[in-house]
Amino acid sequence: MRKRDPEKAERRRQQILEAAAACFLRRGFHRASMQEICAEAGMSPGALYRYFDSKDAIIRAIAEDEREENARLLQALADAPDLVTGLSRIGRAALEAGADPDYGRLAVEIIAEAARNPEVAAIFRRNDAEVKAALMEALRAAQRAGQLDTAVEPAAAAEILIALYEGLSTRALLNPEFDPEQVAPLLDALLRRFLRP
Amino acid sequence: MRKRDPEKAERRRQQILEAAAACFLRRGFHRASMQEICAEAGMSPGALYRYFDSKDAIIRAIAEDEREENARLLQALADAPDLVTGLSRIGRAALEAGADPDYGRLAVEIIAEAARNPEVAAIFRRNDAEVKAALMEALRAAQRAGQLDTAVEPAAAAEILIALYEGLSTRALLNPEFDPEQVAPLLDALLRRFLRP
Repeated sequence: MRKRDPEKAERRRQQILEAAAACFLRRGFHRASMQEICAEAGMSPGALYRYFDSKDAIIRAIAEDEREENARLLQALADAPDLVTGLSRIGRAALEAGADPDYGRLAVEIIAEAARNPEVAAIFRRNDAEVKAALMEALRAAQRAGQLDTAVEPAAAAEILIALYEGLSTRALLNPEFDPEQVAPLLDALLRRFLRP
Repeated sequence: MRKRDPEKAERRRQQILEAAAACFLRRGFHRASMQEICAEAGMSPGALYRYFDSKDAIIRAIAEDEREENARLLQALADAPDLVTGLSRIGRAALEAGADPDYGRLAVEIIAEAARNPEVAAIFRRNDAEVKAALMEALRAAQRAGQLDTAVEPAAAAEILIALYEGLSTRALLNPEFDPEQVAPLLDALLRRFLRP
């Protein structure tokens, strides 16, 4: 086997994931075939199968990318000067996603598949559990620093924050006119009023 | 054509919708067939087609049922002694749904279909717009009654509330241990702190 250039391999991998997302959006996860994904990516089956041997492998890679994106956001939370500023930054990312109909459509397509595929479900649940654990840790740290009312139960608050972010990030599905700029100031006010000591 | 007993017809209609939901959950919307829905409902195709002539007709009926359920919740909001109590009741319904994996699975299955079917999308968007309009009216009424900070912009607050309710009502998809009882008191506190004048 030839040696791969890691940067080129990563570009190819992203190219395939984007082609797969386009096919899932157009046809649905179940009806999209590996042949269609090859055609969309402009690659031969032989080239594509060196990266992903099935649609399940592609969906696992999408889950891995989500995990990395989550880790980036949670690091931004840990690096923020205070809890509300950090949560507001995550909120901003959720609002931006919420204005993109393709983000919401791909999310429901993949979650619908995950609901029928235990292996895929396990990956997305692990991602969710990691986000919840990191949020709880950030909430506890803010309580120790006197930035958060100690009456706020971290596990329950993490559930509410995740639900809010998830709901915002898929708003374009039901409201095509969803406007992040209109909502952002009030979202910040909500976080402040909810969490400040 | 024989005269129908309206109560019996409604029972039959609900029986078919429940059978369809079971088939959509088991197989996905696309792979579920009208034959399977007949078998699940224990009805002949001739009997079933008197109620619904296609899967699209079934999904339209599910959307109509959602609209009626929304109307019931929005009436409970209008009848509540104050805004926060009313929103807390809707929140309770969202939390209960959030503990039911089948609710979330059916929701993503149908929203994924709606994303590829403009006619179905239009029905769910109309439902969403009706909920948003009713929430905005309730928020404005609360502002007139001095129950809500006038700095809270009704359209933005309605978006945030809908996102929160939607996110909570599908939590079981990603967290099978989601516990409404653990979250309910903090959700009420959030609504109170966010909205009280």
